[in-house]
Amino acid sequence: MQITGKNYIGGERSGEGDERIHSYDATSAERLPYEFCQATPAEIDAAARAAASAYPAYRRLPATQRAEFLDAIADELDALDDGFISLVTRETALPAARIQGERARTSGQLRSFAQVLRRGDFHGARIDRAMPARKPTPRVDLRQCRLGIGPVAVFGASNFPLAFSTAGGDTAAALAAGCPVVFKAHSGHMATAECVADAILRAAHRHAMPQGVFNMIYGDRVGEGLVKHPAIQAVGFTGSLKGGRALCDMAAMRPQPIPVFAEMSSINPVLLLPQALRLRRADVAHELAASMVLGCGQFCTNPGLVIGIRSAEFDEFSTLLAEVIAEERPQTMLNANTLKSYERGVAALHAHQGIEHLAGQRQQGSQAWPQLFQADVGLLLQGDELLQQEVFGPTSVVVEVADKTQLVQAAQSLHGQLTATLIAEHADLAEFAELVPVLEQKAGRLLLNGYPTGVEVSDAMVHGGPYPATSDARGTSVGSLAIERFLRPVCYQDYPDALLPDALKDANPLGIQRLVDGKPSSVAI
Amino acid sequence: MQITGKNYIGGERSGEGDERIHSYDATSAERLPYEFCQATPAEIDAAARAAASAYPAYRRLPATQRAEFLDAIADELDALDDGFISLVTRETALPAARIQGERARTSGQLRSFAQVLRRGDFHGARIDRAMPARKPTPRVDLRQCRLGIGPVAVFGASNFPLAFSTAGGDTAAALAAGCPVVFKAHSGHMATAECVADAILRAAHRHAMPQGVFNMIYGDRVGEGLVKHPAIQAVGFTGSLKGGRALCDMAAMRPQPIPVFAEMSSINPVLLLPQALRLRRADVAHELAASMVLGCGQFCTNPGLVIGIRSAEFDEFSTLLAEVIAEERPQTMLNANTLKSYERGVAALHAHQGIEHLAGQRQQGSQAWPQLFQADVGLLLQGDELLQQEVFGPTSVVVEVADKTQLVQAAQSLHGQLTATLIAEHADLAEFAELVPVLEQKAGRLLLNGYPTGVEVSDAMVHGGPYPATSDARGTSVGSLAIERFLRPVCYQDYPDALLPDALKDANPLGIQRLVDGKPSSVAI
Repeated sequence: MQITGKNYIGGERSGEGDERIHSYDATSAERLPYEFCQATPAEIDAAARAAASAYPAYRRLPATQRAEFLDAIADELDALDDGFISLVTRETALPAARIQGERARTSGQLRSFAQVLRRGDFHGARIDRAMPARKPTPRVDLRQCRLGIGPVAVFGASNFPLAFSTAGGDTAAALAAGCPVVFKAHSGHMATAECVADAILRAAHRHAMPQGVFNMIYGDRVGEGLVKHPAIQAVGFTGSLKGGRALCDMAAMRPQPIPVFAEMSSINPVLLLPQALRLRRADVAHELAASMVLGCGQFCTNPGLVIGIRSAEFDEFSTLLAEVIAEERPQTMLNANTLKSYERGVAALHAHQGIEHLAGQRQQGSQAWPQLFQADVGLLLQGDELLQQEVFGPTSVVVEVADKTQLVQAAQSLHGQLTATLIAEHADLAEFAELVPVLEQKAGRLLLNGYPTGVEVSDAMVHGGPYPATSDARGTSVGSLAIERFLRPVCYQDYPDALLPDALKDANPLGIQRLVDGKPSSVAI
Repeated sequence: MQITGKNYIGGERSGEGDERIHSYDATSAERLPYEFCQATPAEIDAAARAAASAYPAYRRLPATQRAEFLDAIADELDALDDGFISLVTRETALPAARIQGERARTSGQLRSFAQVLRRGDFHGARIDRAMPARKPTPRVDLRQCRLGIGPVAVFGASNFPLAFSTAGGDTAAALAAGCPVVFKAHSGHMATAECVADAILRAAHRHAMPQGVFNMIYGDRVGEGLVKHPAIQAVGFTGSLKGGRALCDMAAMRPQPIPVFAEMSSINPVLLLPQALRLRRADVAHELAASMVLGCGQFCTNPGLVIGIRSAEFDEFSTLLAEVIAEERPQTMLNANTLKSYERGVAALHAHQGIEHLAGQRQQGSQAWPQLFQADVGLLLQGDELLQQEVFGPTSVVVEVADKTQLVQAAQSLHGQLTATLIAEHADLAEFAELVPVLEQKAGRLLLNGYPTGVEVSDAMVHGGPYPATSDARGTSVGSLAIERFLRPVCYQDYPDALLPDALKDANPLGIQRLVDGKPSSVAI
């Protein structure tokens, strides 16, 4: 495993600048023996241009060839040895078993997009045949399918160094859509990023992909140049609200505005209904605590807000939850910045007059201590910003409401979320049915009797939601629907068969399902 | 036909302010005997709130009920009498036959969205069934469908007072998606807008739609308050680049940014290939001239740029096209502002040193004279802005290129377009095949041997394209795909059948096609 620290531009390595940045051991804070070349403005430009020059050839490859490329990336990732796993572990403090699982998730994700490419519904093929005899005017022949929007800039997340990073969901979705990628390596795991980029390039080489199909730059202030580059046509981002919103604003102010799909901030409310509390409050307390501290709370879907109706059972539940949280050990966070940010978030909760500390040792040292707070429902109803802000890490806030009416009001007061969870018995669901439409308006995924951590990669998954959960509620960054963010429709009017994309040819050579004259059809026309 | 000029808010009429605005006879410039109430900030707020309060009930109506509502609007429009037609004619100077045709297009559009609602593919239903025995972890039950994004603000266009206005494509798509609408009445045809709004409200009343499902405000500077209103969740716009971009910027700078689908500016290049010129240059000149002056050139898809390779045939074509254009009579434009803007655009072309005037009488008087110009290809290749700007009206620019290489370069130099047209014979297509992928990157609709004016309303139509043709190339504002702009996906995890939307219930009560475990299926599960 050789880490050169140079930028990846058009299939070559480039280290033109003098500035070097470093990677650290997340547990010991020790500097790792690698140097990374901060990309210069010229290198940012070159990376975007390399992607643009790969685009015309790459987007026109048969989808099955892009599928083979994705499968090959998956194979290369799976073939990385234990040295790789221990490197990721060092850079992120995430345990080896978690990294192995995440690697499998990442390669599985790539293979699932390969499957989507073979299935062919992403083409969105629609054919309205000519009607030369129609009165008063004949209808022309119209055929529509979707093509990759252009080069995509991807910003990965710190908390999933594989699944939401270099070869993660956004990269996989963009490459599947036919869009070359410029990836901004996450500063929290640059050596990991290099190993993954190498794996991608080996796969690209093996399948003779156009040079520049995947590019990667290192650096601390390189995002702006990338997002503002005229060649970039869309942005995928996973990270903080502040960072995501800054990219959105930059993209909107470009001479040509471009879409940004930023997955940012969610407190993932969990609503506990009375009958469920009566029957299984102890189980719920233990399960919820486990979800809260899982991975040191470093998940987008970490349950940050727990709401229940005032009752002896809810009191008991809260007391037990506090006891469990109080017993939890501290964990090492992804990096020093994450810990600092966690400390600030916890301090703000401590400092708020309407918020009471229920459990958790004083936050100190180099690890994050799990915390539990209780807030007055008035804060939620009055729109207190602090209660709506994600504290990234193992801390959650309990809120007690007076009754069903106030529970609905509390749900209505929430900002946009990735998830909203009900813990409920059958009887609860009948009584509280009106909650569901409220939650539908607030979140991208609605769970019943589950916990929001754990995001399945599948066709039906939505990992998205109204602002500030994401910048565009119409997208998802997990699951096969994620490919649609990077596609746009094109219509061909009276084009001859030979010039049409395969998805639209009369003979249906791809054997895909198409909408023909308003009806689904898989046969030739 | 009673025109009160009051705003439409939550099913009531409101005229709180003192400011009055007026509508004019487009031909005589005479003020019409109607007064319209400029909406006050309080009325803008009330209209947005009315839409928001209708949203929860409206979005949850069975799609078939929304379909009946759309059909009823269509019926009400079709039932409007000749007095309505002559009113539209007075406000817009468009001939009665055109307005009758446009009315049929508008009601047809509404009925086509009703059909989409009944067909059910807009639900985007996807079901991944639970796999309790999966190793290492069981799979939960995940079901996804799409719901209306929330209240939509719609800004209509002057040039289609029916089809792209009050009950036009954006309104129809939003209402179909389950999104209440606040429509900003176009100042060019406010009496028309009132008649159409009345028709919508009659249909809403007849089908007991929630109050506030459709609202309309009058005024000159009311757009900003509407787009910035927190209740508004998306914007549809058809109009100028300047106006559309201003709305995009406002929407992006909101505390919660929202998507804007603005259809703005396109010069709709027509590329004439050599063999076609050899065989049918005279026909093409006549047909193209007809497309250029149709409706006084007041179409988004008006062909504003004609490109051909230097040759005796292209010279002959240009000469003939100039002769035909020189013979054309002036026409009355939609309103005084449109004419002023046309005069400015024509004057700028006259004033440019690299552009030569080929045909057309001196622009003067109260009507628009068709014009033809010729520009040096260098302007296109060097990115001269004037050549990329739409001049709304009957004027076009011819550009001669040296050879095939320069033709491809010229195509590459184009900004984003709604349409790109090839006039070509079979032999041309073989020789110039490399043009097609370039045009795919530039436009939303690619035509062969047709003319871009004339936009079919169907499943396969794309009336959209890269910036500045639209603000988001992933949408279309004509055709059934337009509904997708106003939908977002929601995922239900382990929800019981009773709480799921009908689209996702086991029994498939809607009888729609769904993606079940990765395969299309129309049966119960």
